[in-house]
Amino acid sequence: MAGKKVTGWAARDSSAILSPYSFHLRKTGPEDVLLKVLYCGVDHTDLHLIRNEVHPATYPLVPGHEVVGKVVEVGSEVNKFHIGDIVGVGCMVGSCGECVCCKTNKEQYCTKMVFTYNAIYKDGSFTQGGFASAMVVHQNYIVNIPENLAPEQAAPLLCAGVTAYSPLKQFIDSKKPIRAGILGLGGVGHLGVLIAKAMGHHVTVISSSNKKREEALSHLGADCFLVSSNPAEMEKARNSLDYILDTVPVSHPLPDYLSLLGVEGKIFVVGAVPEPLQFNASGLILGKKTISGSFIGSIQDTQEILDFWVDKGLKTMIEVVKMDYVNKAFERMEKNDVRYRFVLDVTGSNLE
Amino acid sequence: MAGKKVTGWAARDSSAILSPYSFHLRKTGPEDVLLKVLYCGVDHTDLHLIRNEVHPATYPLVPGHEVVGKVVEVGSEVNKFHIGDIVGVGCMVGSCGECVCCKTNKEQYCTKMVFTYNAIYKDGSFTQGGFASAMVVHQNYIVNIPENLAPEQAAPLLCAGVTAYSPLKQFIDSKKPIRAGILGLGGVGHLGVLIAKAMGHHVTVISSSNKKREEALSHLGADCFLVSSNPAEMEKARNSLDYILDTVPVSHPLPDYLSLLGVEGKIFVVGAVPEPLQFNASGLILGKKTISGSFIGSIQDTQEILDFWVDKGLKTMIEVVKMDYVNKAFERMEKNDVRYRFVLDVTGSNLE
Repeated sequence: MAGKKVTGWAARDSSAILSPYSFHLRKTGPEDVLLKVLYCGVDHTDLHLIRNEVHPATYPLVPGHEVVGKVVEVGSEVNKFHIGDIVGVGCMVGSCGECVCCKTNKEQYCTKMVFTYNAIYKDGSFTQGGFASAMVVHQNYIVNIPENLAPEQAAPLLCAGVTAYSPLKQFIDSKKPIRAGILGLGGVGHLGVLIAKAMGHHVTVISSSNKKREEALSHLGADCFLVSSNPAEMEKARNSLDYILDTVPVSHPLPDYLSLLGVEGKIFVVGAVPEPLQFNASGLILGKKTISGSFIGSIQDTQEILDFWVDKGLKTMIEVVKMDYVNKAFERMEKNDVRYRFVLDVTGSNLE
Repeated sequence: MAGKKVTGWAARDSSAILSPYSFHLRKTGPEDVLLKVLYCGVDHTDLHLIRNEVHPATYPLVPGHEVVGKVVEVGSEVNKFHIGDIVGVGCMVGSCGECVCCKTNKEQYCTKMVFTYNAIYKDGSFTQGGFASAMVVHQNYIVNIPENLAPEQAAPLLCAGVTAYSPLKQFIDSKKPIRAGILGLGGVGHLGVLIAKAMGHHVTVISSSNKKREEALSHLGADCFLVSSNPAEMEKARNSLDYILDTVPVSHPLPDYLSLLGVEGKIFVVGAVPEPLQFNASGLILGKKTISGSFIGSIQDTQEILDFWVDKGLKTMIEVVKMDYVNKAFERMEKNDVRYRFVLDVTGSNLE
C-alpha cells in the first residue's frame, strides 16, 4: 500500500520542536494527485496542534495546511488537474462526499471531514501535512492557483484568507455601502482588512491599543482605527457597523463589540476561543443582531478567494523562510513578530 | 390640548395593584384614530413594567399592549381606517418615520420608537395602554383585524404572536422540510408551536421536564417532545434542528441547545434574559451556527401574522376575564396558571 518515500519536518512530542523525518505517502489512487510541495504557510493552528493543545496529537507529526505545489503525477481518473499544474491544498483532504454538506459546497462541515494532517484518511492511513517534499491528495480537495498569482503569495489564502473571505462573501454584491469592522490584526485579520477593502467596504480596524494604528491605516489601507479600551471612542462608534469579523482567539468582551453594530448587524466569530464567550440577550434583541460562527471555508470558497485575489490585484504580506528556520519562525510567530505570515520555501529547502 | 376623558386601570406604585383611574387622552390629531377598546391581552411584560423592574415606571401607569378596538373617530388626514373598523395596537405607537428602520418596515428598531405605555409621545404627552376604555393612536401604528377573526382571539397576536412570527417568517417559502425547535411553552412559545406547525415545520418542543409533554403533543400538535434534562435524549437529538425559537426569559445553558442545531442552524433569542448568556466559540464555528436576537415585530409583521392566522384557521388559547379580575389574573399568570393567555374583556367591564 505504501507509496513514495518523502522527507518532512515533524514534531516528535509536545515540545513541538520540528526536525527532519522520512515517511511514506500513500499510493497515488485513481482520483489522487501527487504534488511536489513548493511553499507552505505557517499558522498558529500548526503550533497548537503539534503541542497537543487542540486534538490529541499522534507523533511524529508533520504539520502544514497552506500548501502550494506542482502536480507531478495524476491517477487514472483524475480529470481536474494535469501534470505541471500549480495547485493548492488547505485544511482538509477528504469528506464523505455524500451528505448534504458535501453536496452543497459546505464540505468543511461534513462530520467525516478529514484534516490535512494528524487525521485518519479513508483508507486507514495517517495524514501528514505540507511541511514535506510531497503530498498525495484526492482531486476534489485541490484548488487551482491562478496563473498570475505567485505560489508563495497564494499560500496564506488557503487557510487564513478563506477563513476571512467565507463569511464576508455574502456582502460582495451588496447594493448599499457596507461598514465593516475587523477585530484583531493577525494572520486572518490582516487579510480580512485587504478583502473587505477590495469589496469596497468602509473598514474600521478595532484594536485594544493604539500600537497598530499606523499599520492598519498606512500599510493595510483601513479607513478608521478604533481603540476598544477607549470608552469615548467606543461610545461614538455605537451602532455604526454592519458587521465585525472577530478573529481574536482569546477571551474578549462581546457586548462591547455588539454595541458597535447597527440594526441587523452581524459578528462573525472565527477564532476558537477556549473560554466561553458571553453576551446580553437584550443587546442582541434590541437591534436584531447576530453572532455567527464560521469555519475556514469550502473548496469552492478557497478557489473563489484565489480568483478574487488576482482579480483585485491584492498582495499578501509574507516573510519567506527556509525549512531549517521553522522552529525560529514558530517562536517569532508566537511573539507576533511577523508581518503577517511566514511562508516556507519547501522546494528551496532541498529536503530530499 | 387634552382630549377625551377616559377610565383605565392603573398601578399607583411598584406594588403593581391596579385600580380604576381617570385620565385624559390627547386630542385626536389629523392622522390619529380614536378607538374604543374591546379587548386587551395580559402579558408578563406588563407586570415587569408596572413593578418598575424594567424601565423606570411613571405612575399612575395604565398597562396593556395587545389592544383590539373599534374606530370611533378619525382625524382629517386618516386614510387607512374608517369609523367602525376593528383594529389592533401592539407594543408601539410611534417612531421617527424617517430613519432607515422606519423606511424599511423595521420601525420597532427605530431609536425614537415610542412604547404603547409608560413613554413620552412626540407631543410631550405620556402614553397609557389598553387597560382603558379608549386610546388615541397614529394611523401608522394600527393594524386591521381581519373580518373572520374574533377580536378577543386577535389580542395575543399583537405582541406574543408577532414575536414568534417575525423570526420564523423567513422560513415560510422554504423548499426544504424545516425541523423546528420551540424552547419554552409560555405565551410566545405556545403560539410559536402553532405558527411553526402551520408553516409545515416538523416541530419539537424542548422543555426541562416531562410535565408539558401531553400539552405539547396533544393540545398544541407538536410532533416531538424533548426533555433537556435527559442527556440520552439530548444526545440523540444532536444536529437535528434547523432552528430553535428560544422564548425562555431566565438564564439557561445555550451550548446544550446549540448542539441540537444542524449545520447553519439558528437560535432566535426573544426572551430578555437579565443575566449574560454563554456559548462556546467552537460550538458556533463548527457548524456555522447563529445566535440572533429578535424584538417583537414590525407593523407589517403584525398585519401578516393576523392574516396568516385567519388564512391557516388557527385558534389562540385564551381565558377571557373582566377588568375587576386583572389583579388575580396577574397573580395566576405569574404561577403559570393560565393556558395560555388572559384577555381582558374591556368593553364588557363597563369602565365608564
